[in-house]
Amino acid sequence: MSLVIVGSVAFDTIETPFGRRERIVGGSGTYCSLAASYFTRPRVVGVVGRDFPRSAIAFLKSRHVDLHGLKVRPGKTFHWEGRYEKDPNLRTTVRTELNVFKDFRPEVPAAYAGADIVYLANIDPDGHEFILRQFRKPRLLAMDTIRFWIETKREALRRELGRIDLLFANDEEARLLSGEQNLIAAGQALVGYGPRLVILKKGEHGALVFGRSFVFGVLAHPCPHVIDPTGAGDAFAGGFLGYLDRAGSLVRRNIRRAAVYGSVLASFAIEDFGIDRFCTLDAAAVEGRFREFRRLMSF
Amino acid sequence: MSLVIVGSVAFDTIETPFGRRERIVGGSGTYCSLAASYFTRPRVVGVVGRDFPRSAIAFLKSRHVDLHGLKVRPGKTFHWEGRYEKDPNLRTTVRTELNVFKDFRPEVPAAYAGADIVYLANIDPDGHEFILRQFRKPRLLAMDTIRFWIETKREALRRELGRIDLLFANDEEARLLSGEQNLIAAGQALVGYGPRLVILKKGEHGALVFGRSFVFGVLAHPCPHVIDPTGAGDAFAGGFLGYLDRAGSLVRRNIRRAAVYGSVLASFAIEDFGIDRFCTLDAAAVEGRFREFRRLMSF
Repeated sequence: MSLVIVGSVAFDTIETPFGRRERIVGGSGTYCSLAASYFTRPRVVGVVGRDFPRSAIAFLKSRHVDLHGLKVRPGKTFHWEGRYEKDPNLRTTVRTELNVFKDFRPEVPAAYAGADIVYLANIDPDGHEFILRQFRKPRLLAMDTIRFWIETKREALRRELGRIDLLFANDEEARLLSGEQNLIAAGQALVGYGPRLVILKKGEHGALVFGRSFVFGVLAHPCPHVIDPTGAGDAFAGGFLGYLDRAGSLVRRNIRRAAVYGSVLASFAIEDFGIDRFCTLDAAAVEGRFREFRRLMSF
Repeated sequence: MSLVIVGSVAFDTIETPFGRRERIVGGSGTYCSLAASYFTRPRVVGVVGRDFPRSAIAFLKSRHVDLHGLKVRPGKTFHWEGRYEKDPNLRTTVRTELNVFKDFRPEVPAAYAGADIVYLANIDPDGHEFILRQFRKPRLLAMDTIRFWIETKREALRRELGRIDLLFANDEEARLLSGEQNLIAAGQALVGYGPRLVILKKGEHGALVFGRSFVFGVLAHPCPHVIDPTGAGDAFAGGFLGYLDRAGSLVRRNIRRAAVYGSVLASFAIEDFGIDRFCTLDAAAVEGRFREFRRLMSF
C-alpha cells in the first residue's frame, strides 16, 4: 500500500512549563510523516520557504519520508507560535504567519496519484476537491480538522464528512462539530455524518475509535511529564495510518492495533520539544512501547 | 473472605439535565454495597433515621447486603441535595443535612471484626482510629475521601494514607491531595504517601490503577446518556472490592479484573436515577458487560 500526507511543514515557536523553543521544525505533515515512517514510507505533499533548513530535509529523508511532493517556494515558511499552560490541554495561539502556506495549492506528484491512503491534515475543506481529483481511488480517505474550520466553514466541513472514510478529531473539535457534550454521543453523531470511522483523540485520556457497529478504546501511555504536547495528534494520525498502510487491510483487528500504535507514537512525540524525540527513536522502542500497552490494558 | 463497608446510607435530592428526584435513597454505603452484592455478601456499618423507608431496607436485604451494622436512630436520615450540569463532572452541592450522621460513632458488630477487607467511604480521617480498632487485622484496608476532608483535614488525611493499603480518589481529589496537575504524576505521588494501590477514577475516561511498580488502566463503558452520575464512584469501589473479596487473593491479575468490574458497576449506576438501575440489574448483565469490556479494550 502507500500513504500520502497532505499537510503543513512549518516552524513552531513553543513555550511550555518546561521551556521555550524558537522556530523549531514542526507542522502536521512533519509530525505525521515521522510517526508513519516507523511502518511505511510516507509521501508528503506540502510547501516550505527558502528559509527551511536543509538539515531538517535531510533528517526526514533519513527516516525514509518521501519528499517529492514538498515544494520549496520563495518566501518564508509557515510559522506558528503557541503557549501551553500547566494543563497541556490549555493552549494559546500567540501568532500564526501563514507565509508560503497562504496560497498553497497542493500539487500531487503523478507518482503519488495511486495512493491507497490519503490523509488531509487540517486542510481548508474548500481545498479538498482540488487535491482529491489528483488521486485515482484511495481505499482510505482520512482527514483531520481544526477549530478554525469548524467555526468558519462548518457547512463545507459537513459536506466533506460525507465523502471521507475516516475523521480524526480531538474532544473539543468533536463537541463543536456534533453539538454533543457527551463524547460517546459526539463520536456516534460524527459517524452518522458519513465517515466509516471516527477517531476521537482525548490527549492524556487516550482515544476512542467509533465505527458503525463498534467502539474501541485505547489509553494514553502513562507519562508523568509532558514536555511539549505539540504534534501529539498528528503523531497519533501518523502512527495509525502508517500501521494500517503496512498492515495492508482494514479489518477491525488492524484498526484496533492501529489505534494503539497511534497512541504509542503520540506518547513519544510529547517526551521532548518539537520533533526532537524522533531523532533518537528507533523501531525497537516503538515495539517495546506497544508491548507496554498490552500490560497497561490487558486483564 | 468478607467485606465491611463503613459509609453513609442517605437520602439524595438530585437534579440532572434528565430530571429531578426528591429524597431518593442514596449514600456511599448504599451504592458501594449494592455494587459489591453481585460478588459477595457485603456488610454495612452506618446509621439512618426513623424516616428511612423499610422498602429500601428490604431491597438491600434482597440483594444479600448484611445490615446488622446499620443502626436506626431517632431523628432524620442524612440528606444531600445536588445538581449536575450538562457536563456530569460539574456538580453543585445545594444542601447537606447531616442529621443522624452528625454524631455517628460507627459501632462495628462483633461478627464483622474479622473482616478481610474494610472500606471507609468518605469517613472523617480523625474518625478512622475509632473504627479501625474494632477490627482485628484486615488484609486490605481501603478508603475514599472527599474534597471537604482534603481542604479541612489534610494532615490527618496524609497520616491515614500511611496506614491504609488502597486509596480511591477521583481526578480532582488526586490533584488536590498531591499538588500535581498531571494525573500520572498525581497517582505516583499518592502511592508514595503509603498506599500499595491507588485507584484514580476519571469518570467518563475510566480509571487508572497505580501500584509500586505498575500502572493499569481501564476505560469507562461508552455511555451516550448519563442519566444520573451520583454514586458512580461508590459503585466503582463496590464492584472493585466485591470482586476482590470473591476472588480471595490480591494478585495483580485480580486487581486488574477488579478495576474492570469497578468500571462495569459504575457504568450501570449512571444509567438511571439513584439506585434504580440496581433494582433490575442481574448477575448475567454484569458478566455480559464485563465481556463487552474485553471487546472494548482488546487488541
